[in-house]
Amino acid sequence: MQIAEPLTIAIEELSKLPGIGKKTAQRLAIFMLKMDDDRVDGLLNSIKDLKIKLKFCKRCFNLSEEDLCEVCKSEKRDQKLICVVEEVSDVIAIEKTNEFNGLYHVLGGVLSPLTGITPDSLRIKELLKRFENEEIKEVILALNPDTEGEATSLYIAKLLKPIGVNVTRIARGLPIGGDLEFADEATIGRAMINRISI
Amino acid sequence: MQIAEPLTIAIEELSKLPGIGKKTAQRLAIFMLKMDDDRVDGLLNSIKDLKIKLKFCKRCFNLSEEDLCEVCKSEKRDQKLICVVEEVSDVIAIEKTNEFNGLYHVLGGVLSPLTGITPDSLRIKELLKRFENEEIKEVILALNPDTEGEATSLYIAKLLKPIGVNVTRIARGLPIGGDLEFADEATIGRAMINRISI
Repeated sequence: MQIAEPLTIAIEELSKLPGIGKKTAQRLAIFMLKMDDDRVDGLLNSIKDLKIKLKFCKRCFNLSEEDLCEVCKSEKRDQKLICVVEEVSDVIAIEKTNEFNGLYHVLGGVLSPLTGITPDSLRIKELLKRFENEEIKEVILALNPDTEGEATSLYIAKLLKPIGVNVTRIARGLPIGGDLEFADEATIGRAMINRISI
Repeated sequence: MQIAEPLTIAIEELSKLPGIGKKTAQRLAIFMLKMDDDRVDGLLNSIKDLKIKLKFCKRCFNLSEEDLCEVCKSEKRDQKLICVVEEVSDVIAIEKTNEFNGLYHVLGGVLSPLTGITPDSLRIKELLKRFENEEIKEVILALNPDTEGEATSLYIAKLLKPIGVNVTRIARGLPIGGDLEFADEATIGRAMINRISI
């Protein structure tokens, strides 16, 4: 027996989403099939609204319902501090910590020559442009601690240095609650080098 | 900063799906936000079509685009053999094996007094009714090998025995490609009891 065509198509579409394999897609499709119409409508409308109502902040490229995002609009935020992140999800993660009170700049990715992501495909020009209108004292690079993140950090740092802005990078070390025994060598090594006096 | 409302709503809706937690829902929502409009439309329409185009087969409650599903309509299938399964996904799984050439009956669940699933909420009446019009010689119970599946199998077997039909159950034993060393005791025990001569 062939699987009914509408189900095959739905499974195919769902399995294009990140982290969703064929099996999960099938489970999701059959679950949706058995959901109440109202609940499916709620789900579909919420996704439609995502695309209709949300856009990217004109200044920092964070998600926003208006031209400027809530962070950029807020007068309580430190306007002299910009945290550069890879994706919108990183803004959410940092905001949850309540440890950062500056502005953001979402790059939209990291440099990756192999997959064709060059400086032009990131929002680096837009970052440099902010120095024309804003009085920025420090740029914190908060990219992922992997090869591509490190390379992108170095690339941006090089561009920013001549402007005379202070460029920093978030610390690498053992994660809180982590176990020294199970940490990888690179992390422990970096934690040793970056030790601070107490 | 509050997460933008449309994103919060989409995350909430997505995390109602089985196996999708808050973190995965957030990743999916942000991914969809960055997808091309066409691709999002494709996804949304495929889910809409699921609900519009698919219904349950009137005879066996398998998924179908018409009144009778492809299995029930096929004259090549053995009309004297019914395989009783829990869900539509089980039909798909069994069909993939190419080892079964009979008909199906999808119960829509298993007995579970704790969550309020009684014989009336399953399609047991509908199964019994099939004996009025169909000439069934054997019913294969292919429910999951857990407590609820076993209890449901026994319940159905008791109802079917007086009708004079042959009731069987799919074998339990070591999974093909499995490792004796890592199998649980219950499985090994059952495999010993159900040993067959070679």
